[in-house]
Amino acid sequence: MGLDWRKSIVSVDQFTPESIAEIFQLADKAPHAPKVLAGKILTNLFYEPSTRTSSSFHAAMSKLGGDVIPINEVHYSSVSKGETLEDTVRTLACYSDVIVLRHGSDDATERAVSVSEVPIINAGNGRGEHPTQALLDLYSIYCEHGRLDNLTVTLMGDLKNGRTVHSLSKLLRMYDCKVQFVSPASLSIPKKYLHPGDRVYNELGDAITNTDVLYITRIQEERFFRPMEVDISYMVTSSDMGRAKSDMVLLHPLPRVGEIPEEIDSDPRAAYFRQVKYGLYLRMALLLEILILPEMLDRT
Amino acid sequence: MGLDWRKSIVSVDQFTPESIAEIFQLADKAPHAPKVLAGKILTNLFYEPSTRTSSSFHAAMSKLGGDVIPINEVHYSSVSKGETLEDTVRTLACYSDVIVLRHGSDDATERAVSVSEVPIINAGNGRGEHPTQALLDLYSIYCEHGRLDNLTVTLMGDLKNGRTVHSLSKLLRMYDCKVQFVSPASLSIPKKYLHPGDRVYNELGDAITNTDVLYITRIQEERFFRPMEVDISYMVTSSDMGRAKSDMVLLHPLPRVGEIPEEIDSDPRAAYFRQVKYGLYLRMALLLEILILPEMLDRT
Amino acid sequence: MGLDWRKSIVSVDQFTPESIAEIFQLADKAPHAPKVLAGKILTNLFYEPSTRTSSSFHAAMSKLGGDVIPINEVHYSSVSKGETLEDTVRTLACYSDVIVLRHGSDDATERAVSVSEVPIINAGNGRGEHPTQALLDLYSIYCEHGRLDNLTVTLMGDLKNGRTVHSLSKLLRMYDCKVQFVSPASLSIPKKYLHPGDRVYNELGDAITNTDVLYITRIQEERFFRPMEVDISYMVTSSDMGRAKSDMVLLHPLPRVGEIPEEIDSDPRAAYFRQVKYGLYLRMALLLEILILPEMLDRT
Repeated sequence: MGLDWRKSIVSVDQFTPESIAEIFQLADKAPHAPKVLAGKILTNLFYEPSTRTSSSFHAAMSKLGGDVIPINEVHYSSVSKGETLEDTVRTLACYSDVIVLRHGSDDATERAVSVSEVPIINAGNGRGEHPTQALLDLYSIYCEHGRLDNLTVTLMGDLKNGRTVHSLSKLLRMYDCKVQFVSPASLSIPKKYLHPGDRVYNELGDAITNTDVLYITRIQEERFFRPMEVDISYMVTSSDMGRAKSDMVLLHPLPRVGEIPEEIDSDPRAAYFRQVKYGLYLRMALLLEILILPEMLDRT
Repeated sequence: MGLDWRKSIVSVDQFTPESIAEIFQLADKAPHAPKVLAGKILTNLFYEPSTRTSSSFHAAMSKLGGDVIPINEVHYSSVSKGETLEDTVRTLACYSDVIVLRHGSDDATERAVSVSEVPIINAGNGRGEHPTQALLDLYSIYCEHGRLDNLTVTLMGDLKNGRTVHSLSKLLRMYDCKVQFVSPASLSIPKKYLHPGDRVYNELGDAITNTDVLYITRIQEERFFRPMEVDISYMVTSSDMGRAKSDMVLLHPLPRVGEIPEEIDSDPRAAYFRQVKYGLYLRMALLLEILILPEMLDRT
Repeated sequence: MGLDWRKSIVSVDQFTPESIAEIFQLADKAPHAPKVLAGKILTNLFYEPSTRTSSSFHAAMSKLGGDVIPINEVHYSSVSKGETLEDTVRTLACYSDVIVLRHGSDDATERAVSVSEVPIINAGNGRGEHPTQALLDLYSIYCEHGRLDNLTVTLMGDLKNGRTVHSLSKLLRMYDCKVQFVSPASLSIPKKYLHPGDRVYNELGDAITNTDVLYITRIQEERFFRPMEVDISYMVTSSDMGRAKSDMVLLHPLPRVGEIPEEIDSDPRAAYFRQVKYGLYLRMALLLEILILPEMLDRT
């Protein structure tokens, strides 16, 4: 993936520990960022609905003074008149400074990038990637633990279909982390994401005791071709929390559908709503990098 | 209802004549308010569509310099992935300074308030309340008549199901008003809203002659379980207007579906579109009270 | 059409060469226009979806500092409660400084204008007009050729149903242009748009060789009552481009569905995406004229 991530964010493969450190520094300052994106326009082009992700980008852009064109109903519109994704992107690029794209096809981001005159941010392409989610997950670990090294990270749930887990596991390889995978056999992590030294479990069990970060994902029913292949037995319980480290951090990309009972929300280690806020700051940092830094570099 | 209305607006029961007077003073100045909400974000979270109410809040926020995240299609989105109202609210609270919530369930506002880190404004919860509509109705009476005492207010239409009428009738009790109810027997005002001295009619008839404010509501077909229990004979006619006081004020929360014929629109007493504008100013005042005044108090 | 276009834009018949020249001068400066519409609100009231047109107006308003209330789902909302177009417009006029209206009925714009307290911009009314599209088409010709006289303009495609073609052909009559029409017999240009000296063809053929502007339109399937009356043989080919003038300009209102193969996109004469950008500037100019110039005149 030779594409500069400041031109378009397609995959976590575009990032290095150095670029990530720079982004996180900027995200730390995001809560107090001035409205430097005034006059800029972000288009939220969502072929699949995602209130969470589209709202996060909307808020990030607004907080920096920019404007947002929300397009959440592409199925009704030009596309139903037979327009290609490429032509829709070419057109919206004329109105926008950046396009955030969620699409059901794995090759959608690549196709968009190949024709767009403005940066594309991949906000989920089919079974492919969702790189800004992975970055915000990593940023959440960083904010909660203050470091990215010397951590044992346990990923639990649907590890086969969860694009978030795939992307996050790639990022973790850049740091000195131990990775543990917990899933039913039918939803286990694909081999290409496994590294030597990883541990694989079929249930959480004792794997909780040495865990510094427990990252739980939803059984993504809507990505299945058949209805619900497994029942959800991959939830975390109060008993699990009782055996976990006192500074363990519990993350979840949300929405949850039972994997974490509400009674755990009040546990200080439950960080999944703080994670939402970290995501806002992380996306503000990405927008600043993509929309402002190139201009500043152009001037020098 | 012990909740401070500046924390969240749930019900008209939170208001007193003193707080209402303060809000109305602010609403009077709203047309010339500076853009003091720059940098603030309002989320319009509408589980049921309402162009009128969502547009009113959108415009109120925009005119004060704030930004709006419009969410009008919750049924497509996270919720269809099984997320609870509570989690949706917790998430959006991370992005927003205030959430305006319209929902089909009577207990929705209460549930949202119980988990939200930012103020919730109830914009209609099932058969419950719609407090900002009732406040704007009262503000309209105040703007048109210059007072809230010594008035005879006649409420006509579907008095059984109309949450607007229920809330407005509660507010009127704070002032020295006579209240008259006109409806078919099957849609009469529930007993708990009746006070000693109220008059109840099955048709408008002579009740028009002493009326200072005639407030008409739509037969809310979509709240019925059976289609249309009555035909609409509770419309106002030119003949009624001929017998009414020369300074009577005709109000309607809109949309109308035949209760007021268009020929009456040009009558200077027809105030229902001025009412829309009063509503904008009233909501601007509420946003200022909720989003700015707490900050000012914090500083002192 | 005696209505001043600065009050409401209904039809191309409202414009003269003088007013068009003034608008184009303003459009030329639009890329550097300051945010003079801060505090103004545009409502995009789209009864029929049109991502392209609504996004164009949204971006135009945002770039000038104004705010937008996007209403793309009227079918779900008040209207489904039985509200008339007139009442919806009266209400939204209370919140807005200008309303952009797309509606399926030919008489929608007229009805809206008759009741609105703020300017209406017709963004497509049934089989009627789409005047801002025609103006941006004309502006595209002006930007590409630097003049509007001494040009041969060839209009090709569905000339019977395409409201864009009808409006553009009217505007071209104001200038010293030759007009050629190319369409299947069943979709030929209605007689009322034909002028003496026009040429009419059933295929492009040699008509390409003297053409300065080739304007192609989509076969608008969704306006048919029967499915697809003709197959699309009215596309432009590389061979056609080979026979065309070296400074010919190829325009298309988009979306295209096969009339122009993608291989032609890289031809410098392919101007249809530049046309999108010209459209943005043209609409910025119209908004400035409608929202700011009256205020300036009021002050003098």
